[in-house]
Amino acid sequence: MTFDALTRDQIQSLLDEQNAAYRTLQDAGLKLDLTRGKPSPEQLDLSNDLLALPGDDFVDASGIDTRNYGGLTGLLELREIFAPIMQVPVEQVVAGDNASLAMMHDSLVFALFHGTPDSERPWGQEDAVKFICPAPGYDRHFHLLEEYGIEMIPVALHDDGPDLATVRELVKDPEVKGMWLVPTYGNPTGSVVSEAVAAELAAMETAAPDFRILWDNAYAVHHLTEQQTKTADILGLCVASGHPNRPVIFASTSKITFAGSGVCFMGSSADNVAWYLSHLGKRTIGPDKVNQLRHSRWLRSTEGVHALMDRHRAILAPKFEAVAEILRTRLAEHGIASWTEPKGGYFVSLDVPDGTASRVIELAGAAGVAMTPAGAAFPYGDDPRDRNIRIAPSYPSPDELATAIEVLSTCVLIAAAEQSLAQ
Amino acid sequence: MTFDALTRDQIQSLLDEQNAAYRTLQDAGLKLDLTRGKPSPEQLDLSNDLLALPGDDFVDASGIDTRNYGGLTGLLELREIFAPIMQVPVEQVVAGDNASLAMMHDSLVFALFHGTPDSERPWGQEDAVKFICPAPGYDRHFHLLEEYGIEMIPVALHDDGPDLATVRELVKDPEVKGMWLVPTYGNPTGSVVSEAVAAELAAMETAAPDFRILWDNAYAVHHLTEQQTKTADILGLCVASGHPNRPVIFASTSKITFAGSGVCFMGSSADNVAWYLSHLGKRTIGPDKVNQLRHSRWLRSTEGVHALMDRHRAILAPKFEAVAEILRTRLAEHGIASWTEPKGGYFVSLDVPDGTASRVIELAGAAGVAMTPAGAAFPYGDDPRDRNIRIAPSYPSPDELATAIEVLSTCVLIAAAEQSLAQ
Repeated sequence: MTFDALTRDQIQSLLDEQNAAYRTLQDAGLKLDLTRGKPSPEQLDLSNDLLALPGDDFVDASGIDTRNYGGLTGLLELREIFAPIMQVPVEQVVAGDNASLAMMHDSLVFALFHGTPDSERPWGQEDAVKFICPAPGYDRHFHLLEEYGIEMIPVALHDDGPDLATVRELVKDPEVKGMWLVPTYGNPTGSVVSEAVAAELAAMETAAPDFRILWDNAYAVHHLTEQQTKTADILGLCVASGHPNRPVIFASTSKITFAGSGVCFMGSSADNVAWYLSHLGKRTIGPDKVNQLRHSRWLRSTEGVHALMDRHRAILAPKFEAVAEILRTRLAEHGIASWTEPKGGYFVSLDVPDGTASRVIELAGAAGVAMTPAGAAFPYGDDPRDRNIRIAPSYPSPDELATAIEVLSTCVLIAAAEQSLAQ
Repeated sequence: MTFDALTRDQIQSLLDEQNAAYRTLQDAGLKLDLTRGKPSPEQLDLSNDLLALPGDDFVDASGIDTRNYGGLTGLLELREIFAPIMQVPVEQVVAGDNASLAMMHDSLVFALFHGTPDSERPWGQEDAVKFICPAPGYDRHFHLLEEYGIEMIPVALHDDGPDLATVRELVKDPEVKGMWLVPTYGNPTGSVVSEAVAAELAAMETAAPDFRILWDNAYAVHHLTEQQTKTADILGLCVASGHPNRPVIFASTSKITFAGSGVCFMGSSADNVAWYLSHLGKRTIGPDKVNQLRHSRWLRSTEGVHALMDRHRAILAPKFEAVAEILRTRLAEHGIASWTEPKGGYFVSLDVPDGTASRVIELAGAAGVAMTPAGAAFPYGDDPRDRNIRIAPSYPSPDELATAIEVLSTCVLIAAAEQSLAQ
């Protein structure tokens, strides 16, 4: 029965029951972690062949000795594998080291110090720089903006992308210089930006001539079902709309090969790439080309990437199904929570009764289940409704995961009952 | 005979002779490159064992699965190997990816945006930021400062370090926020900052409370003779003088293992390291830990690094000897040029008659020998005397190197004779 249909006494009795269960869980001395979207050891094992590559042959397909200096753009043979995934011509793809976050950071720093090819002045010389932040979103995106004093404007994120009416209004402000988007299987909601929404974002007039969409396609090939969602072709759409420099596209193999030792990619218009490389060339002589060679030898082709992702799916999909099953069993009947059942990506987004997310996370922590802090998926860590909880099912073993979600469900019920009784 | 002792006719006859030799060289269709301090393939081969490491065992000595996310500071077991070389306590050493230049870049960016722990405001909010640049120096250091609008003040570099009287005068200006130094076997002169000079730099009062010495110890263990010069202990000296936050020390394995796939290091005071990590953590979740593990397994210990460097020396020292021998044979008698015979590092610095370096490099280029552009070793690419030429002997084979230095010598003689006759 839903809470609404329960009497105070019935709620009190449910609370007592859950509190008793909670004390038992506390006594179990659990130590579980659902905080970060980390691949599990079993997933990492899939790419263990990398650990002995490239072996004797260190020369890439174009004849470059990968051991020596140079090659700022990254190895062509690796960029060829990922260009189709990024939907960017290979000449406009840069391959870097192990963190696409670093490429995002550097793109922002270069824009702040030097302006983009379309800027009238460096962003840092504007009175203010603002970014549209679809939320819930990726906490590290928001931390980057905060680090550099860029004002964040949260915008509601629907299943098919950010709220367009709000975005259209906001971009009338010339200080609004850009927006974040995780187009496919967004973190944490699993939302997918539709081709129609992407087309509007590509075409819309913006007061800032140097408006940028930072299109972090972190989960481009990270499907959880047979349905392999294709990311909207944001570069093609922007070119067609006469805004070729608008999108900057990022990807990485952090959740394809090794999170701690992958390769990352940035793709954009020819002008933007030339601009990026001109500044990057002051920072480094080139990326780790041996690791890039290692990756191209191991992945072999775009198809090789997809085949590897099928093996990840075989490990991950049952975990996501287990989360959904437990949440359904424990919470559905009470009508107090809703959650996503994403078709890809790394997260389940759980919404609990307004004002109780912090309490749920506090309770879970005290029972040994670490959750991402409440509000983390929102700019400035501020979830205005204090209701969103991000669940990262990938790292724990199936047993640990099941236990953690049971604990979490208990905590959701306790917090909801406490709140209901306090009213 | 020196040029001074020659008649005009004798100089003309020497010029004719060298021009004839030059035309023959031009006809040979050479394509040689002395521009960059790149390790030769033979040197890279020394570390080929890295190419199949770490193999099956991806867990570091402290139990970390290096394949996964995390570990911003870098692997302890690798930092332990390099801490003694950097003369910094291991807790104050950060290990990064394949480019120490990137760590220097990021340190500057963080100071510009946020200020250092000792800054009253971000450097970027000062009316001007100036850096002392001992010259000749490393061109990429200067390009970094130029990239971020930091004013460069060249200071003469002596055999034992920068000219102290000038430095002492300059640091009375609060806008002078720092200085570059390559303390050991400086690029390109091979100069070594003496303990006495380092002590003065550590102790001197500076108007800026946040004055920084960017101590790029790129050639710390890169000896060319039996005499293993020990770098001055800049951190110890600064601590003793009450300026613990003054030095920021950098190193890398670019010229120890693989230039295109090494690891790099940053070390400083505990405060500076905490500051650096706090900002770095917004840019990345961690460095490539598998590559760090690969390096710690292959190098094994600080002694392992020194043993490897002995093998580099066996390849490099004969090349430096050949350069000195040819320059001596071709140029010494004319008294028109001087050059360094460094005890370590990667470069020979050649000074030709004032006003002729550009002409020498132009002539060499037209004969198929690429040299670093004239002035490259000076801030803004401006060698006020147009006399300095940087020679990088490491990459070419011994035969190619000998040919290139013969060509260069011919060009030096031609340019000197032309100038002499034009006066």
